[in-house]
Amino acid sequence: MIKQISLFFVLCVFVSMNTRAQVVEDFQPSPVNQPGSAYPQVNSEGRVRTQIMAPDAKSVQLDIGGVKYDMVKDENGLWTGESAPQDVGFHYYQLNIDGASVPDPGSLFFYGACRYGSGIEVPSDDQEIFAIKDVPHGHVHEIWFPSESTKTDRRAFVYTPPGYDKASSERYPVLYLQHGYCENETSWPVQGRANFIMDNLIAEGKARPFIIVMTYGMTNEISFGGLRNFDIKPFQTVLIDELIPYVDTNFRTLSNQENRAMAGLSMGGFETRLITLNRPDVFSYYGLFSGGVYKSEELSEHENLKLVFMSCGSKERPDGVKSAAAELKSGGINAEYYISEGTAHEFHTWRRSLHQLAQLLFK
Amino acid sequence: MIKQISLFFVLCVFVSMNTRAQVVEDFQPSPVNQPGSAYPQVNSEGRVRTQIMAPDAKSVQLDIGGVKYDMVKDENGLWTGESAPQDVGFHYYQLNIDGASVPDPGSLFFYGACRYGSGIEVPSDDQEIFAIKDVPHGHVHEIWFPSESTKTDRRAFVYTPPGYDKASSERYPVLYLQHGYCENETSWPVQGRANFIMDNLIAEGKARPFIIVMTYGMTNEISFGGLRNFDIKPFQTVLIDELIPYVDTNFRTLSNQENRAMAGLSMGGFETRLITLNRPDVFSYYGLFSGGVYKSEELSEHENLKLVFMSCGSKERPDGVKSAAAELKSGGINAEYYISEGTAHEFHTWRRSLHQLAQLLFK
Repeated sequence: MIKQISLFFVLCVFVSMNTRAQVVEDFQPSPVNQPGSAYPQVNSEGRVRTQIMAPDAKSVQLDIGGVKYDMVKDENGLWTGESAPQDVGFHYYQLNIDGASVPDPGSLFFYGACRYGSGIEVPSDDQEIFAIKDVPHGHVHEIWFPSESTKTDRRAFVYTPPGYDKASSERYPVLYLQHGYCENETSWPVQGRANFIMDNLIAEGKARPFIIVMTYGMTNEISFGGLRNFDIKPFQTVLIDELIPYVDTNFRTLSNQENRAMAGLSMGGFETRLITLNRPDVFSYYGLFSGGVYKSEELSEHENLKLVFMSCGSKERPDGVKSAAAELKSGGINAEYYISEGTAHEFHTWRRSLHQLAQLLFK
Repeated sequence: MIKQISLFFVLCVFVSMNTRAQVVEDFQPSPVNQPGSAYPQVNSEGRVRTQIMAPDAKSVQLDIGGVKYDMVKDENGLWTGESAPQDVGFHYYQLNIDGASVPDPGSLFFYGACRYGSGIEVPSDDQEIFAIKDVPHGHVHEIWFPSESTKTDRRAFVYTPPGYDKASSERYPVLYLQHGYCENETSWPVQGRANFIMDNLIAEGKARPFIIVMTYGMTNEISFGGLRNFDIKPFQTVLIDELIPYVDTNFRTLSNQENRAMAGLSMGGFETRLITLNRPDVFSYYGLFSGGVYKSEELSEHENLKLVFMSCGSKERPDGVKSAAAELKSGGINAEYYISEGTAHEFHTWRRSLHQLAQLLFK
């Protein structure tokens, strides 16, 4: 019995030491830190480490990916701690200081989880798809468009491709691109890096230059449990009757169905699906990123449909996307699917999905 | 003696009650809160009140205007506290939780004090100058321009007036507008609300439509004490040799001296002064907002100078600005000054200054 206990004790110490030894000490500052901030950092395993001065605190935790990791205080009151390895790509996170949930002051802030809060970038093998390279850059316009139906002026971001402002007469196709639940119109142009993905694809000759319009999908006023009762009409009115006419008046667009696409991530895919089914006359390209699938019978009367694109992370339900694409193809519809390897329901899946879809649009 | 003590005690209680009674209970959520967030709030006296759940904290403080105000915990662990009355306009602030300085998760975040952190808006009588009204809105373009001298692609924000994207041939004058020390290129288009100030002036017919370009002034890498040794050359090169040519190529500008202005706040005024003195051939309108003054002898060889504009808050040193304007006028220079009533070295002074200057430019 004593022997067994001793063995168990030795084993526990070994496991504990081994766990410590497994943290690879090659941490680097996250590229989305505040200017000049050394923390948070990420190592080659994808562990996130951060620090904060809190000399009088009893408990500080790093809260990421749904798990809270205890941090440790040194003699100066500086707390340090790290997470388990995270998937590649972008993650929202926060700190808990004696029970208060607050942003980490070391990181930049991003709109997700229904609030502006901390974000971190875990390096990926394909991160150069959204890097800021020495190539011609398009512009991201912040616009405010009038909305009769909501009695407000509403914000959208509009990406125009490199050379748009120089070219005085060229007209461009348009992708309307929606964020997910608890995100907003900043999510695609900021953490989604839609503009840099496009700049790089255009520089490589892999995508036709087009305009991207990103606005708030009015998704966040409902409870997520209330999704079945979600009424698409208010947003459909803003998008179809107010935003599209504003964009077609104020930008040099090709303003017909054949040159108009709609895509969205997660609940933005849900919205894309509903709006394209309600209004088969408006868009010719449909994209659902981790946002459901179409059945061919739903699309039987969609006359000018050029492409259905569906995607998700390999850690989501890739089989559903694959079988839906096969079913659409068997129904005579041009369908493509994409599975993001090693990622879940997060922004890296959706950056990669945009990178794929953009190469297929308007060709 | 006992009588004296009693009197003192009664007096203290009275003062204490009276102090409490002085807090006017008409607090309203700040307009720059996170979506759906009830706190922070501001009352008609300009007091800031905020709340945060921190059940295990020993001490929480509201840190605003250089003063830390103790907050009080209720039985549920919710801390509440308020500041003394603040000047009208925009203020940066933070919370201190058991010694940790963190953003208030209830507010939106703004770049100032050398980091993105919390901000609050204290209502002012003239806040409609920057309100989002039902008028035509210009666009704020996020652009990335190549910079040989720094071997980077650099970000700027470009305001184009309403109708710019519709009008296919009209060309516009340009104002280059700089932020202050520990701010960046987001400060003018976000908390400065430069775009809404312009939209409203143009709608009222009070300003000629022009373009505004806002980039990072490379101010924050130096220590503030090192200002005397500040070398303007790196930023002057970026601005004059790289950004201006990019803007003149990519936007429909009137690309000559007579249609080009430079202005800046605080250290951005200091930069404006140095650059306009080094390069009298580039700009015809100079604006210093809480950012120093010119002497007429310095400008004796500035041949195409149309206007010198100097301003500050009434709580700064208005006499210096007034006497400098008088001295310039006596030297035959078209000089104007503006004093922002009731404000100090903060963004409301500078919003009002832009509102004044914009009405004088390019006329």
